[in-house]
Amino acid sequence: MEFSAKQIAGVLNGRVEGDAEAKVSDFSKIEEGKPGTLTFLANLKYTHFIYDTQATIALVNEDFVPEKSLPETLTLVRVANAYTALAQLMTMVDRSQAKKPGIHSMAFISSTANVPADSCYIGAFAFIGENVKLGNNVKIYPHAYVGDNASVGDDTILYAGVKIYDNSIIGKRCILHAGAVIGSDGFGFAPEGDKYKKIPQLGNVIVEDDVEIGANTTIDRAVIDSTIIRSGVKLDNLIQIAHNVEVGENTGMAAQVGISGSTKIGRNCMIGGQVGLGGHIKIGDRVNIGAQSGVLSSIEDGESVIGSPPVGVREFFRSSLIFRKLPEMYRTINQLQKEIEELKKIKK
Amino acid sequence: MEFSAKQIAGVLNGRVEGDAEAKVSDFSKIEEGKPGTLTFLANLKYTHFIYDTQATIALVNEDFVPEKSLPETLTLVRVANAYTALAQLMTMVDRSQAKKPGIHSMAFISSTANVPADSCYIGAFAFIGENVKLGNNVKIYPHAYVGDNASVGDDTILYAGVKIYDNSIIGKRCILHAGAVIGSDGFGFAPEGDKYKKIPQLGNVIVEDDVEIGANTTIDRAVIDSTIIRSGVKLDNLIQIAHNVEVGENTGMAAQVGISGSTKIGRNCMIGGQVGLGGHIKIGDRVNIGAQSGVLSSIEDGESVIGSPPVGVREFFRSSLIFRKLPEMYRTINQLQKEIEELKKIKK
Amino acid sequence: MEFSAKQIAGVLNGRVEGDAEAKVSDFSKIEEGKPGTLTFLANLKYTHFIYDTQATIALVNEDFVPEKSLPETLTLVRVANAYTALAQLMTMVDRSQAKKPGIHSMAFISSTANVPADSCYIGAFAFIGENVKLGNNVKIYPHAYVGDNASVGDDTILYAGVKIYDNSIIGKRCILHAGAVIGSDGFGFAPEGDKYKKIPQLGNVIVEDDVEIGANTTIDRAVIDSTIIRSGVKLDNLIQIAHNVEVGENTGMAAQVGISGSTKIGRNCMIGGQVGLGGHIKIGDRVNIGAQSGVLSSIEDGESVIGSPPVGVREFFRSSLIFRKLPEMYRTINQLQKEIEELKKIKK
Repeated sequence: MEFSAKQIAGVLNGRVEGDAEAKVSDFSKIEEGKPGTLTFLANLKYTHFIYDTQATIALVNEDFVPEKSLPETLTLVRVANAYTALAQLMTMVDRSQAKKPGIHSMAFISSTANVPADSCYIGAFAFIGENVKLGNNVKIYPHAYVGDNASVGDDTILYAGVKIYDNSIIGKRCILHAGAVIGSDGFGFAPEGDKYKKIPQLGNVIVEDDVEIGANTTIDRAVIDSTIIRSGVKLDNLIQIAHNVEVGENTGMAAQVGISGSTKIGRNCMIGGQVGLGGHIKIGDRVNIGAQSGVLSSIEDGESVIGSPPVGVREFFRSSLIFRKLPEMYRTINQLQKEIEELKKIKK
Repeated sequence: MEFSAKQIAGVLNGRVEGDAEAKVSDFSKIEEGKPGTLTFLANLKYTHFIYDTQATIALVNEDFVPEKSLPETLTLVRVANAYTALAQLMTMVDRSQAKKPGIHSMAFISSTANVPADSCYIGAFAFIGENVKLGNNVKIYPHAYVGDNASVGDDTILYAGVKIYDNSIIGKRCILHAGAVIGSDGFGFAPEGDKYKKIPQLGNVIVEDDVEIGANTTIDRAVIDSTIIRSGVKLDNLIQIAHNVEVGENTGMAAQVGISGSTKIGRNCMIGGQVGLGGHIKIGDRVNIGAQSGVLSSIEDGESVIGSPPVGVREFFRSSLIFRKLPEMYRTINQLQKEIEELKKIKK
Repeated sequence: MEFSAKQIAGVLNGRVEGDAEAKVSDFSKIEEGKPGTLTFLANLKYTHFIYDTQATIALVNEDFVPEKSLPETLTLVRVANAYTALAQLMTMVDRSQAKKPGIHSMAFISSTANVPADSCYIGAFAFIGENVKLGNNVKIYPHAYVGDNASVGDDTILYAGVKIYDNSIIGKRCILHAGAVIGSDGFGFAPEGDKYKKIPQLGNVIVEDDVEIGANTTIDRAVIDSTIIRSGVKLDNLIQIAHNVEVGENTGMAAQVGISGSTKIGRNCMIGGQVGLGGHIKIGDRVNIGAQSGVLSSIEDGESVIGSPPVGVREFFRSSLIFRKLPEMYRTINQLQKEIEELKKIKK
């Protein structure tokens, strides 16, 4: 799709400086600006790149004053805030790529499923089980699987190969990335002599509204009631959420985090990549946990911690720096011991 | 499905106290008991919740004596052991949800595959390759893939999107969760100047009986012979098992564990979440390895270790606690050095 | 497939010693040699196994001199280098198993896609989107998904259930294992009060030639331009590559590594299992990073490091060994303090 400087200025409530008919069909970063693209000056640190960019249009702040001449091929679109305007433009373009409604002839939809055919997209090889309920404008990509009795709220997207086990409940405006698994059996076994007997996992998973779940992330269903992912939670790729966990509103987790069974996490927490949380603990609200931490005890509201076991961030980095001095410290202590023995002897 | 108190007591060899016709269709925990559900008093710590539960039926031990009046809406079913009875009931309900036999018209089954059509369930978009052999009562969910010459034993379940590469052998009564990958190429490359040349991976994966494999877990096939997962092994989600690994009977691994190539793990081990094991080592029988440990050397039978490199559990937590005192220790040592120098001078 | 000793010697430019018509249909390791298989003596440590192997053919070096009599059932094929010859043979056998060209009737191929039908294999339930361009000899296994406008180069293999998002570019001779996800949305959100607003991810992923990507590995697309995986990169299973990352030529990563957004990694690096790299850092060329390291700062060319924060390998293991002596050190320091106080008093 192509847009002219004039069209872009119109949408963004901006002002063209240069060729109003200049056309772009893609974005580029200011340091790599290519012909036919729109670039932007959001971070002033990068200002020097604009003087020889090959980009066709640049979004700049209203108050931008060039310090030398700009390329002749460059048209400016001046807006109140270049960064906000860029985000607005990206969102528009993104929406324009959305799949059109329609049910592919090679999809399978159970006769008992409730699918608003006029607003939903159901791709080839998608599977919609018995009694499934889809909201309006739902998009189910190819190879996605929605098990029996599951429901998916309005405007939610399930990308290719997402698997939703039976009875799961997915909210509105959620985005589930390719290969994510929702509702697999929790890891529950009772010892029986040397062997293990499976404890049936009869609960489900509830994902509330505005949740994003990364590619190949897995969320197990509860033993009896529900594993719950509250509204606004953002989960990156390859995360593991065990059975009976609850993740509070607007909490974000980076990739490869693992949360053990029955742990409750508060709202607006930030959990770094590859963190592991033990089972049956409680993480308060607005807690920050640094990457790769191992957490086996509960954490109070508002704390920022890192490490295994976790300590304050400053404390952790101070101790980590001294970790490499351990051999030297060990030698020094031995030396001191000898010197003291020497002093004692002399004393006597 | 609905069950009456009378039916439940009949099945569990229990005794009704209250309305024998009271009906339930789901389970609930004692602290959240909802009308129309069966709850249970397995842990006496939770006894106080029973006095105002809204659940319709409660499973209790035969010797339970209420300390105050129970809700009028509550019917008791007394059994010898409430916890065992609950597990029995959950297993029954679980089985009742199993898929009915039948081959979906949108499945693909190679003409050379051996599929007992009267007892197997093969879902839409399932793929069964050349010369595949399925046992009786096998369940293959939608989007599962069984490569050429693979075999799957009686009563095994492959959930949605499980991928079994060619020549893999899966035992009886196994459960493979959505997105699990069995038999992918081992990670083997020989340096060739600056580049790497692929070493062909010609072996396979053998999964014995009663194994459970979590969602999106990956098990690579051997270079020449077999990667082996012995009977009764339980693997959680997102685990990586490299080529030529052998995992002994009844060993359990929590989520996100990674096992490097050619490592042998004994029987009845417990391996915590996010543990990493180096290649070509031997872990004995009944070994416990704490979460997030990094193990590069072999471990003897019966040891319990944690850390990187792993040490005894007590030792690890003691050292970890002192880790945060490192800056203080460092300062103290410097101070002591000065004081000793002082003392020496005085001495002279 | 069966091969005679004569055929094998012919291919490998070797020499038969024994029954030229002896036939094998599989490989076996020297310590487990089974009848009907070809074994090999590549590592002299294993020489003693050859004297009672049941294998039918053994590949040995030209200069191998048995120290006692070999089994009567064993035929030798002598070659210049047994290990190289074995690799050559394995590669041949491997190629012989490749899928034949052909488009399955249950595949979906968009009418606007460009698929060389005479040389490509497209399995059942494979999905090829709008304007997709496939090279020659491409193999797309069942349940693989190639989104709109994506391209896949000559001789590349997408195994079962690989998901390629729209606009991704995959090079020649690549191998993508089952469940790998290429081009999922980067994890980008802007805070908006207590909530998060999604930053659209409009870029793509470029995978150059001769890249191997492990099972269930995930690679996110860039915000605006491209996440880039350079030629010859080898990625193991369950790895996470975030948006805007660049991985240099011939770099290898073991399983479960996580790379945060915008980080640039040089060429010919080796990154151990479960390593985590922070965002916006630069790893030089030929860098080795030990397993489970946590890296938050840039690393110069040619360094070998391990730990969190990473230090030299020797330094790390030295400090790790002393880690377990921390409680003892702590006690010693306290003891020394007392003794010095004692000495000072006496002094006075």
